[in-house]
Amino acid sequence: MKLYTSSFAPNPRRVAIFVAEKGISGIETVLVDLTASEHRSADFLAKNPFGRVPALELDDGRVLCESRAICSYLEAIYPLPNLMGTDAQERAFIEMADRRVELHLLSTIANCVRHTHPGLAMLEQPQFADFGASQGEKMREAVRWLDGELASHPYVAGERFTIADITAWCALEFARGLMKFKPGAEGFGQVQAWRDRMAERPATARS
Amino acid sequence: MKLYTSSFAPNPRRVAIFVAEKGISGIETVLVDLTASEHRSADFLAKNPFGRVPALELDDGRVLCESRAICSYLEAIYPLPNLMGTDAQERAFIEMADRRVELHLLSTIANCVRHTHPGLAMLEQPQFADFGASQGEKMREAVRWLDGELASHPYVAGERFTIADITAWCALEFARGLMKFKPGAEGFGQVQAWRDRMAERPATARS
Repeated sequence: MKLYTSSFAPNPRRVAIFVAEKGISGIETVLVDLTASEHRSADFLAKNPFGRVPALELDDGRVLCESRAICSYLEAIYPLPNLMGTDAQERAFIEMADRRVELHLLSTIANCVRHTHPGLAMLEQPQFADFGASQGEKMREAVRWLDGELASHPYVAGERFTIADITAWCALEFARGLMKFKPGAEGFGQVQAWRDRMAERPATARS
Repeated sequence: MKLYTSSFAPNPRRVAIFVAEKGISGIETVLVDLTASEHRSADFLAKNPFGRVPALELDDGRVLCESRAICSYLEAIYPLPNLMGTDAQERAFIEMADRRVELHLLSTIANCVRHTHPGLAMLEQPQFADFGASQGEKMREAVRWLDGELASHPYVAGERFTIADITAWCALEFARGLMKFKPGAEGFGQVQAWRDRMAERPATARS
C-alpha cells in the first residue's frame, strides 16, 4: 500500500494519527506538495479526480480516497487497538460522534479559514468572507456542544479514545493554527482540558 | 425502535429508502413538523441537540442520530440485502463513493438551496446568496464527475445497488425539487438514465 498525503492539512493528519495510534508500519508514504499544486497534476488526478489527499493506493492499483473510508479499511485489516467500535451499537454511536465532529466542527472551521484566510485563496476561489465569518460563529456553537459532551465523558464518543477524538483533535489544531482559536481562552474549559490530554499522546505529538 | 423523521428533506428520505430497500417493518415512525419548528422544541432537542432529523430512539432510550450512522446500525442488525459492502475492501470503496456523493453533491445542493431559496430562510440565517450560487456551480462539477462514473459502471459505487445510490438519488431529488435541476437537460445523460432507472425501484417510488 502507498499513502499519498501531505503535511499540515487536517484530513492527511487524521489518517496519519489513525495509523500511528494503530501502530501500523510499512505503508509507503508519498508527499504531495499542495503549495506546488501537485494535487492538480494529471498523474494525481488520475488517482483522485477530486485532487485531494490523502489517497491510499492498494497493491492491486485501486485507489481508496476519503479519509474516513481509508480509516475504515485500516480498521478492518488492523483491528487492534479498536478505534471505531466493537459491536453494531458501539460502531454506530462512534460513527455518529465522528460525523458530528466532522460536519459541525471540522467543516465549519474549514469553511471559515478557506473563505477568510488570504493564504488559502489558492484552495478556494472565490472566497466569500461574510460566509466564512458566519461559519466561525457556527464553529463556536459546535465547540459549545463538545464542551457539554466532555463534561459528561472523558472522550468525544464516550469512555474511551476513538476515531472521533482524532477528528476533533485535527479540527481544533487546524483552528488553532489558522484562526488562533484557543478553547480555554473563550470559556470552553472541558475542550481545553481534553485538548491538553490529547497533546500528550505519542501519536498526536508526532503528527 | 422509534424513528423521528420528517417528509421531503433529503436526510430523512435517505433513511426511509434504506429501510424500504431492506424491507424492514416494525420501526415506529414519529413525524417531526419542521415548518412548525418542532425540531427546535425542548423535547426534541433533548433527543438531538443539533435539532435535526432523522433520529433513531433505541429500546433502551438512547438516541442514534446522523443518517449514515443510522444506516450502519440497521445494516448490522438487518444484514440482507447488503447495501454497504460485504468485506473490508468493498465496504471501504462503498463508503468512499457514498462520502463523495454526500460531500460534493448533497452538501453543495443543500448549501445552494439553503442560501438562495426564500422558502429555506427559516432554516438558514443569514443567507449568503453569492456563496449559494457558487455552490450551484460546484454541484454541477460533481454531477459531471458522477456522469463519468456512471459511464463505466451502472451504479454509483460500481456493479450493484448500494447506499451510495440512495444518497445520490436523495441529493438529486432535492435539486430537482428546489433548483429545478434536470441532469439530461444540462447534458448529463448518464446521470439522467441512472436517475430514470432508480425511479422505477419500489423503494424510491414510495418515498
